[in-house]
Amino acid sequence: MDLAGLGEFGFLEHVRRWIPESAALVGIGDDAAVVRLSDGASLVATTDALVEGVHFRWDWSAPADVGYKAVAVNVSDLAAMGAEPRWLLVSLCAPAATSTDLLRELYEGFAQACAAFGAELVGGDTVSADQIVLAVTALGEVAGDPLLRSGAEIGDVLAVTGPLGRAAAGVNLLLSQDPKKVTPEDALACMDAHRRPMPRLQEGPLLRAAGVHAAIDVSDGLASDARRLSESSGVGVELDADRLPVAPEARRIADARGWDAERMVLGGGEDLELLVAVAPDDLDGVPVDLIQVGRVVEEGVWLVRDGQRAPLEAEGWDHFR
Amino acid sequence: MDLAGLGEFGFLEHVRRWIPESAALVGIGDDAAVVRLSDGASLVATTDALVEGVHFRWDWSAPADVGYKAVAVNVSDLAAMGAEPRWLLVSLCAPAATSTDLLRELYEGFAQACAAFGAELVGGDTVSADQIVLAVTALGEVAGDPLLRSGAEIGDVLAVTGPLGRAAAGVNLLLSQDPKKVTPEDALACMDAHRRPMPRLQEGPLLRAAGVHAAIDVSDGLASDARRLSESSGVGVELDADRLPVAPEARRIADARGWDAERMVLGGGEDLELLVAVAPDDLDGVPVDLIQVGRVVEEGVWLVRDGQRAPLEAEGWDHFR
Repeated sequence: MDLAGLGEFGFLEHVRRWIPESAALVGIGDDAAVVRLSDGASLVATTDALVEGVHFRWDWSAPADVGYKAVAVNVSDLAAMGAEPRWLLVSLCAPAATSTDLLRELYEGFAQACAAFGAELVGGDTVSADQIVLAVTALGEVAGDPLLRSGAEIGDVLAVTGPLGRAAAGVNLLLSQDPKKVTPEDALACMDAHRRPMPRLQEGPLLRAAGVHAAIDVSDGLASDARRLSESSGVGVELDADRLPVAPEARRIADARGWDAERMVLGGGEDLELLVAVAPDDLDGVPVDLIQVGRVVEEGVWLVRDGQRAPLEAEGWDHFR
Repeated sequence: MDLAGLGEFGFLEHVRRWIPESAALVGIGDDAAVVRLSDGASLVATTDALVEGVHFRWDWSAPADVGYKAVAVNVSDLAAMGAEPRWLLVSLCAPAATSTDLLRELYEGFAQACAAFGAELVGGDTVSADQIVLAVTALGEVAGDPLLRSGAEIGDVLAVTGPLGRAAAGVNLLLSQDPKKVTPEDALACMDAHRRPMPRLQEGPLLRAAGVHAAIDVSDGLASDARRLSESSGVGVELDADRLPVAPEARRIADARGWDAERMVLGGGEDLELLVAVAPDDLDGVPVDLIQVGRVVEEGVWLVRDGQRAPLEAEGWDHFR
């Protein structure tokens, strides 16, 4: 059975069974989803599309992993605003020959992610296309002012919520198709970081409440995302080469294979840790473990090594280059 | 210049210039869009994707038309709920070789539609893909209970907000690449109905306020959308063959070319008129021009011709068949 056999109507019936029932006023099956907001809260909305062959490969990830990740990268954007995820919409573009099994597993992944992240899939659309595209919209609420990219101030400490590089090491392993010299545990940890990244949903709202000045999720590599934060805030950023927080599994894999761990942290993304700018005096009061990686300066994007500043090129993922 | 030349960052800079500035708390450029709702109002969210070669062709529509239509089909879903459009998010999937001119015109189309429909583009995402996909999410507000597909009651009158068939006639003309026997005025009216359909944004909220029982926008053909309304409401529907509201331009083109005007109305979509179910006693009080097309019955989907009922097959567009 495939999409051609199911037809659009039949597919929607399947989707209804594959995902948990929604408490939305109107969920799947009408022209649009209706959700009632808590009084006074702001709505936060984000959209991110995952494209077959670009963001995921079926020989690397199970369909449920792909569905899970499509949700994870979206709610990660909400976490970076200090918001809590509530509702999801998914536009699924897929060839007519796509198998029902694959679709079901994809929606199992959506459902697993919704359960893990406390969100509900309330709407969507399904259209034919040459390759599979999952265009997800996530809506969330924030209690008060959202945490922006644009609030970094000169003198702030730059810090991340966890070590980086696992997802990049995982992708490199998958690309090389060669587990030589790597322990199965390290390999699995890193490939899972690529397949099922963990957004910082608890940490985002806590960081917002603690008065952190700015935040962004590290989805395209620390260099690119630090640059984005600096440009949004109209300031500069300086990262310390000797403090780049390489995850131990990524470090061991890089050492074993002769890969550059620093480049994996600066240029590899998808770890979904949060990069924050916080006033030095506020650092002790933040109820989230943070790893300092640099500081906010007047201008420029810099890497400091052995006391020397060098311009940090954007090494992160750019879809069109 | 193309997307490869612009890069993702450069493209975002262009998007900022191509669309009007937003009054959202946070619009384009942060991790997510933040919008504050009016007190007590419900949020309505919908998503619809347009795929190159499936929903649009560059030899049929200018890029600005495609952008306009991507917004129009989404806000039409809001209108069908009796909601008013407020905010839009767009995930653009496109090959790296896509020209900047095309992208600019696409966003001009978004901007024109936003201006026409009173909505704002507040967020989005841009990723590479083999074909262009515009995955739009529209968010709107409704003052009170939304107008659903599921409220039709036995004995209700079925009616549409305007005549149908223009968009189907336009597509047929574009497919045939042959304007023979058709006046330029009729041809243009029908091709424009395909390129820039007009959602019933004023009528939707008025119909909701007037207590209409159910509504759906006619996006996939009257037969398909009447069937959807009947299934959602758990009732049957009966359409009168001699009352099918063929737009005069579509009628003249069908007659001139030997096409079946009835099939264009039943199976051709995209006119974006609203199909409503309304109690007969309420009909006079509805402040919107309506064309009666049938009635709600106990079960089944029927076409009545010369007093004889025949099952009405789903003739509308199904993406996977």
